[in-house]
Amino acid sequence: MKKIGVADTTFARYDMYKSVEDELYMLGTGFEIERYTVPGIKDLAIASQKLIESGADIVMALGMPGPEPIDKQCADQASKALLYVELKKNTHIIEVFVHEDEAEEEDLADLAHERAREHAVNVYDLLFRPERLEEKAGKGEREGHPDVGPLR
Amino acid sequence: MKKIGVADTTFARYDMYKSVEDELYMLGTGFEIERYTVPGIKDLAIASQKLIESGADIVMALGMPGPEPIDKQCADQASKALLYVELKKNTHIIEVFVHEDEAEEEDLADLAHERAREHAVNVYDLLFRPERLEEKAGKGEREGHPDVGPLR
Amino acid sequence: MKKIGVADTTFARYDMYKSVEDELYMLGTGFEIERYTVPGIKDLAIASQKLIESGADIVMALGMPGPEPIDKQCADQASKALLYVELKKNTHIIEVFVHEDEAEEEDLADLAHERAREHAVNVYDLLFRPERLEEKAGKGEREGHPDVGPLR
Amino acid sequence: MKKIGVADTTFARYDMYKSVEDELYMLGTGFEIERYTVPGIKDLAIASQKLIESGADIVMALGMPGPEPIDKQCADQASKALLYVELKKNTHIIEVFVHEDEAEEEDLADLAHERAREHAVNVYDLLFRPERLEEKAGKGEREGHPDVGPLR
Amino acid sequence: MKKIGVADTTFARYDMYKSVEDELYMLGTGFEIERYTVPGIKDLAIASQKLIESGADIVMALGMPGPEPIDKQCADQASKALLYVELKKNTHIIEVFVHEDEAEEEDLADLAHERAREHAVNVYDLLFRPERLEEKAGKGEREGHPDVGPLR
Repeated sequence: MKKIGVADTTFARYDMYKSVEDELYMLGTGFEIERYTVPGIKDLAIASQKLIESGADIVMALGMPGPEPIDKQCADQASKALLYVELKKNTHIIEVFVHEDEAEEEDLADLAHERAREHAVNVYDLLFRPERLEEKAGKGEREGHPDVGPLR
Repeated sequence: MKKIGVADTTFARYDMYKSVEDELYMLGTGFEIERYTVPGIKDLAIASQKLIESGADIVMALGMPGPEPIDKQCADQASKALLYVELKKNTHIIEVFVHEDEAEEEDLADLAHERAREHAVNVYDLLFRPERLEEKAGKGEREGHPDVGPLR
Repeated sequence: MKKIGVADTTFARYDMYKSVEDELYMLGTGFEIERYTVPGIKDLAIASQKLIESGADIVMALGMPGPEPIDKQCADQASKALLYVELKKNTHIIEVFVHEDEAEEEDLADLAHERAREHAVNVYDLLFRPERLEEKAGKGEREGHPDVGPLR
Repeated sequence: MKKIGVADTTFARYDMYKSVEDELYMLGTGFEIERYTVPGIKDLAIASQKLIESGADIVMALGMPGPEPIDKQCADQASKALLYVELKKNTHIIEVFVHEDEAEEEDLADLAHERAREHAVNVYDLLFRPERLEEKAGKGEREGHPDVGPLR
Repeated sequence: MKKIGVADTTFARYDMYKSVEDELYMLGTGFEIERYTVPGIKDLAIASQKLIESGADIVMALGMPGPEPIDKQCADQASKALLYVELKKNTHIIEVFVHEDEAEEEDLADLAHERAREHAVNVYDLLFRPERLEEKAGKGEREGHPDVGPLR
């Protein structure tokens, strides 16, 4: 029995946790999910660390950085902190960030849903079937947007 | 009995500590507050670390970065150092930064007061009622400004 | 018997692993290769760490960052995380990144192939014949592009 | 008996150490000063670490970054390294940087003297009378320039 | 008997190692030199770490970053990694970087030679006569370019 940790924020404008949960339960069994909600993206790293210490074998960190330069700076800080936890704890943390200026406001919820869903598949693959990732190596996969495919 | 550490600076132009203290005592009991004042935002990380070593279960780091590019750079350094302490000590540090160019000078004190107050609620929730944060996940909460709410 | 770890991504649009494998087997023997595929460049650091813990004496991290500013930021985060693993594990990690905007789309596959191939030679040299690197010190070597040569 | 470490550089164009020393000896007694001079600002972190290992209870790191973009980048690296030492050694390091483009050349020496002097007071306060810092919290103190004072 | 480690790259377009070696042997005796050549500047940190583990009392890291924005980013990553090793190993690492756009191509070799040579003096001073650095504190020393001297 594996445990998948999911950290998310009250700052985000879409409940990506729901998308992740739905997708994971469609993909298979053999895991449980633990959730940890924090105020903003800068709190995701400590939440992820606490999830790992609580037994998570892998973590998803869900966030929606705002569109201003200061938001980009915060996202950069948050990402670096997530990487630090990942390496310190030797446990995969899949960052699922949707930037508010990545799409028009009316398309943002779909993008967030799609990206969360597709990264849930990545998490499932890393845990239960890593050979599927190797098959897709160098194939131009994208999460949330259509795959661009391999060159040529 | 929990301990809430609050680190603040002489550089800031508003006494956010007062806002935090007032709000926390309105929210409930079961905690004490310890304060540590330093010259500038770059000193907040070591202050936070010392508060945690002095027994704080959670820390608030209050700062007001100036408006110049060099101030932004200092704020970035300070934030990264706060994240480092947070992960090293496995203890939440809630960063409450108000940038001097976020609002007109006449609105800055209100913004600082509001942000400090709303983050004090986050701190209280993280310590005593984390289920409240989960209820607000993905709801577009903002601290200091009006909530933007969920997409759609 | 040495082990060369190779981490790569499903995000990349060219299978640089194949280029690396072909080149290494042409260069000599005395090593085996272990591969670890992850979704994106930010996952390369943990993959590299896991390869080293699995016995790799050196690692190649293959990635193709996209052309947008956010992609550059991700590449920067990924590079710093790779450096951190390298120093923590005291093991060379050769970063082989091809930025999508480094060349026209029709030349990108060739660039990726060439860079991967030439860095495979560097890896072989570091492992088996470091004196070859010393001979080329200060000579303006480039990987993927023609060497620029020494000044004057 | 406390020890105050002071790290400075041959790159700087003003001897801030002298300003620090004069100010500290005017403020009181109960401390000794140890100095460590290095070539440039990037060497201040290791100098500070060595001062702390030599018994310093607090360190001042004095530097004058140049005006070019590369100088700003070096200053950022130096600051981050100072923060890292500070947290690793759990010892305050007060960074006293004067950027060459902060003032006209004819005013730079005065700025450097004033900033060094005022930070020496901060160091003395942190060591011997922290309550003075708490009294000035949120009061808009500035070092080297006139205080801006609190909002409103 | 001290050991001076020198890390350099095949990417550089000038053999700064030679300049360092010549200068050091002119300055005095009581040391030996160990060299470690790597492909690029991002590999200098691990090379420096390995030199220190091999007994080096101080390290020089010689590199020539290219002129493009991505090269500046790589140089920043490399510098930060060098600082990290320096602090982790508590051993001075003198970074000697010459940026390709710091001078016209025809002057670049002279600049690289001069900077390497002058930093070799710094290394010698740090090892054998630190009092010479203190004498030059605040004097506006520059390496590779003429000294600018103290203010006023």
